[in-house]
Amino acid sequence: MGTNEPTDYDDDSWYSNDPLEPTSPPKEVIEPCDPTVPDNLYHICILALSLVILLVLAAFTRRKRLCLGLFNGVPGLLSPVNMLNQTQHKGLATAVFGLLMCKLSILVMSKNPLPFIKESSPTTQELWKILALFYYPLLYYPLLACGSLQSRVGYVLGSLLSWTHFAVLVWQKSDCPRTPEIYKYHSLLSSFPQMGCLAFLSFQYPLLLFKNFNTESQTNASEDLKSSYYKDYVRKILRKPIKISLSPETPNLQSRVKTLLSGYIYKPEDDFRFPLKVAISSVVAFVTVYQVALLLVVQVVPVLQKMRAGVKEDIVYVLAGFGIVLSESKAEVVELVRYYFWVVEVCYNSALTLSCLVTLTMLMRSMVLHRLNLQGLYRGDIYAVYNCQRSIRPSRPALVCWMSFTSYQSAFVCLGMLIQTVVFFICLLWFVFLILFPILYGRHLFAFRILQAMWPLWLTLCLAGILQHVAAKFAFLKKDGGTLDLDNRHALFLLTYLLFPVNVLVGFLVALWRMVISSLYNIIHFSRLDISLLNRAVESFDPGYRCYAHYLKVEVSQSHPVMKAFCSLLLQSQCLEEAVAQRIQDAEEGIQLVQQDKKKTKISKSRVARARWWLLFTLVNNPSLVASRKHFQCQSAEAFYNGTLNRDNKGSEKKPEKAEA
Amino acid sequence: MGTNEPTDYDDDSWYSNDPLEPTSPPKEVIEPCDPTVPDNLYHICILALSLVILLVLAAFTRRKRLCLGLFNGVPGLLSPVNMLNQTQHKGLATAVFGLLMCKLSILVMSKNPLPFIKESSPTTQELWKILALFYYPLLYYPLLACGSLQSRVGYVLGSLLSWTHFAVLVWQKSDCPRTPEIYKYHSLLSSFPQMGCLAFLSFQYPLLLFKNFNTESQTNASEDLKSSYYKDYVRKILRKPIKISLSPETPNLQSRVKTLLSGYIYKPEDDFRFPLKVAISSVVAFVTVYQVALLLVVQVVPVLQKMRAGVKEDIVYVLAGFGIVLSESKAEVVELVRYYFWVVEVCYNSALTLSCLVTLTMLMRSMVLHRLNLQGLYRGDIYAVYNCQRSIRPSRPALVCWMSFTSYQSAFVCLGMLIQTVVFFICLLWFVFLILFPILYGRHLFAFRILQAMWPLWLTLCLAGILQHVAAKFAFLKKDGGTLDLDNRHALFLLTYLLFPVNVLVGFLVALWRMVISSLYNIIHFSRLDISLLNRAVESFDPGYRCYAHYLKVEVSQSHPVMKAFCSLLLQSQCLEEAVAQRIQDAEEGIQLVQQDKKKTKISKSRVARARWWLLFTLVNNPSLVASRKHFQCQSAEAFYNGTLNRDNKGSEKKPEKAEA
Repeated sequence: MGTNEPTDYDDDSWYSNDPLEPTSPPKEVIEPCDPTVPDNLYHICILALSLVILLVLAAFTRRKRLCLGLFNGVPGLLSPVNMLNQTQHKGLATAVFGLLMCKLSILVMSKNPLPFIKESSPTTQELWKILALFYYPLLYYPLLACGSLQSRVGYVLGSLLSWTHFAVLVWQKSDCPRTPEIYKYHSLLSSFPQMGCLAFLSFQYPLLLFKNFNTESQTNASEDLKSSYYKDYVRKILRKPIKISLSPETPNLQSRVKTLLSGYIYKPEDDFRFPLKVAISSVVAFVTVYQVALLLVVQVVPVLQKMRAGVKEDIVYVLAGFGIVLSESKAEVVELVRYYFWVVEVCYNSALTLSCLVTLTMLMRSMVLHRLNLQGLYRGDIYAVYNCQRSIRPSRPALVCWMSFTSYQSAFVCLGMLIQTVVFFICLLWFVFLILFPILYGRHLFAFRILQAMWPLWLTLCLAGILQHVAAKFAFLKKDGGTLDLDNRHALFLLTYLLFPVNVLVGFLVALWRMVISSLYNIIHFSRLDISLLNRAVESFDPGYRCYAHYLKVEVSQSHPVMKAFCSLLLQSQCLEEAVAQRIQDAEEGIQLVQQDKKKTKISKSRVARARWWLLFTLVNNPSLVASRKHFQCQSAEAFYNGTLNRDNKGSEKKPEKAEA
Repeated sequence: MGTNEPTDYDDDSWYSNDPLEPTSPPKEVIEPCDPTVPDNLYHICILALSLVILLVLAAFTRRKRLCLGLFNGVPGLLSPVNMLNQTQHKGLATAVFGLLMCKLSILVMSKNPLPFIKESSPTTQELWKILALFYYPLLYYPLLACGSLQSRVGYVLGSLLSWTHFAVLVWQKSDCPRTPEIYKYHSLLSSFPQMGCLAFLSFQYPLLLFKNFNTESQTNASEDLKSSYYKDYVRKILRKPIKISLSPETPNLQSRVKTLLSGYIYKPEDDFRFPLKVAISSVVAFVTVYQVALLLVVQVVPVLQKMRAGVKEDIVYVLAGFGIVLSESKAEVVELVRYYFWVVEVCYNSALTLSCLVTLTMLMRSMVLHRLNLQGLYRGDIYAVYNCQRSIRPSRPALVCWMSFTSYQSAFVCLGMLIQTVVFFICLLWFVFLILFPILYGRHLFAFRILQAMWPLWLTLCLAGILQHVAAKFAFLKKDGGTLDLDNRHALFLLTYLLFPVNVLVGFLVALWRMVISSLYNIIHFSRLDISLLNRAVESFDPGYRCYAHYLKVEVSQSHPVMKAFCSLLLQSQCLEEAVAQRIQDAEEGIQLVQQDKKKTKISKSRVARARWWLLFTLVNNPSLVASRKHFQCQSAEAFYNGTLNRDNKGSEKKPEKAEA
């Protein structure tokens, strides 16, 4: 990553006399570079192009809709992507969100946030940054909109746009790989994921176009409901009994380790697809990890390397000023200090790597748990997920949390990585300088000397602990008729009394351990939204977990696969086809029918009777539905259809069987 | 507490020229004082007296036992107190444990841990300290043993011993109120709880003696089982239905606040008595709070006061050396610096007071929760307490945790208070110097300037938040047949996409809030063993909570009130009286009978038949008992009796009804 080239920093002229002051990182003269395609010109052109593409798409959508004989509601153009649809292609949306995240991370550090404004004062700069927060989503919007129409024209235009974006970015970066900001290659390195996302889009759009030519062109109306995924899901859960995740009482070590590992490795399952939001969150979190790690490396490592290279014989006097004499020979001192700087650098890089690995592992674990949680909620296992009873319905806070879930995930990953890196770095430094070096070189034995001086105490505490365990096992417990019971109570009470002061000291060690383990656990799990960092009684005070809990409500209530399977079966069933057909045209909105209740549908009497009979059958089998049905007084078919939305899945799990029968 | 007398520290001769170096606290010459009763002589005398008392007690116990016609097992003298008995007098045991805790806290800081060794080198000093850890429990043992026999001789000797201890301590402290260690009055102040405990004992022993004269003298054999407490408890739970603590769905604000407050204020209930261990833990924790607070005050406040008093005009140059110019006038600078020192002192004292209050509140809350947990476990509500199914039986780790529970509680309180004081102190300093002073005096406006410079960002974030909430409430949710459902999905997805970058910034604030709230929660609740600081899935990794969970197992399995009530009913029932009478003499061991299975008891045939019928009736009604009964092949009465021990309380809750019938 360009950081392993200490030869670049051998120029000592940039250093002040005191190499221990890292507050002023030395400046390397890199000429500001103007790419062949200037940024402002490129943005004006691409904005114009995007606008044209949007207009074409709008005209095309309108024409298509008119052909279908209905022109009402918001054109599909203004819906970037249906985020509550589990069966669609997830690549486009995730790539665009990833792109946006890259831009955001560059934008926060940049001095010229908007491409049209070249020079700006610090006060106005912030205003431009805020403006840029809204500019970039708009800029990349056409890339998303081209895909959401699922038509050939959209794919063609999308290919065109993504190619342009990609080509210009690569051209610009190859023109100017070095920039004067932060670290010379930072701009180049930070644009890699951006390039990746654009390359993916440039490849994906033509691929989709090709696939679209091969298969029959179809509107995206009931695409989601027609997918076989939901029916397969229902078949699966009807076929095999649901595994309850209660582990057997005494699993052996091997199976325990296996279970533990499999909990941290996400394996995709054919019969379960992730909600789009989670896919986007994962990609965005991954991009965040890359960008934060890059920033942490380029901000610190070059400085450390320059400091190491700048260590001169003056350091001897500086250290002597603090009363530290490392060695008699000046050259040896310089060598030692350089070596220590190198060790610090290694510790920092290790801490950063560890932090990245931990964050990625936690993200994987999140995915595994998320699948379990969704599956649990689908089968109505609310208590196991939330540890209390909750109604799984959309509400105002739930909706706000659903909207911000992806953003929060990336912000939490970012802050979590910062904290982890700092903590791991400090721990590694302590470990290396207090434990590893004394063992390797036999100097700086402070920690060992303290431990050694306290050996009688450690011995006493150990002996007291062992004594209690041994006594408890052999003297105070007796096996009596298959169960353990207390024995020798007199001695038990006596020992408890006599060991009370020693146990207080043992308690101190336990309390320290409690402090360490709770801090470490919280730091490691900071980036995870799916668990609360607080005690189970006050879980919802943790804002991260609260967001996740609310997010799950919207996700489960709006895209329950059993409900969707039921709806799709209804759509397919012959007898109701005509009645439902007119109501399905707005099915881009997922699964809800347009409620034009006043229209009279032409259903023959026998069909009405049949539908009513079905309704009765459903209600008899699911009495919980009756209470919430009294508000619907429209036709029986509609009542039957609506009656299944937002209900507990116990009822809906049963219905498909009957519909199939 | 002697710390409000700055006149004591006006002597400037103790200060070095640099008053900002608090590392060397100035020494005040306090002559080492020899009390009229030298410590070593006193300890030798009191040890001899204690030994004599123990011998007298031993002889007396042996005589009493012989009179009763049975001389077997360990004499009761070696059992300090039955810690699994809920009905006995708790005062004596708690006072002795409190005494021990005071001695421990003095001992840890003392340079002469053992009274017999006057001068010791630092290496041997630690050995003496370890020895002292075992010496003091032995020294105070007779104070406990005198009460455990529950006889007049015991009370007389106990009064004698406690009077001696108390008188000598008061004499010593009035002789030498000032000591050269740490802070001149520290020794005196730290002995107050010790005096309190001894005074309580000196008062309690004569009181017990007086009571014993009034009531009929009785052996302590079946004291616990004969108490009406258990029967009352059973009557209560049989009379009224058990309240399930599910709160109503929408409680109003007033009732919520009331519930919250009542959860933090412990009100004793007549029909529930605490286990002795918990009472001891509370007293010991209270003593710990006092000792830690005292130590924190005397270690820091005098130093701060001395530093404040030592601020001279030199400070101007010292500050100028760091580039800090507070004012042009030297006198004003001195005034300002003194004022700042005073503010620091106030902050420190406030932090300490806050920490004490928080710890005491948490202890109260612990007591409330502890009662709820015990009551829950008594009625078999294991899942609500542990959040998983566990077997409530004594085991090796459970017994070790039971033994160390009190000690851990005090150690956790100590460390918790230290952490809380430091954190609160830092927070208060930040608050005062960054927020309060700028508002009051209009200087040091760093924080406000930063906030002011970022106002466009705060405004944007606020507006984005409000926009989402308003849009969610009015545009994206519609009330449809009594339930909320999504509306305007296109616009929802569009807004989610457009606000993604802004929400990332909001997410940062939320992440910071998560960090603050989880740290603060864990710091405040650190001293509580009854809740886990970790997530609910890994609760048992928290060593404090693990200790508590195990402790509860032993406590509940060994002193279930329903089981004890059943046993006491059995003891009272006429038909079994004779059979049980011979087996009851060792009932100091709680509720278990001596298992001398080989002896044949003389029960008439009709009684055997009756007992067998009862057994059959019990087993038919409680089939879960059958499996664990097959190992007992002794007489029916014994089987009937033993069969009820250590069983799930579902069965035992039913039995008393039948026994009464």
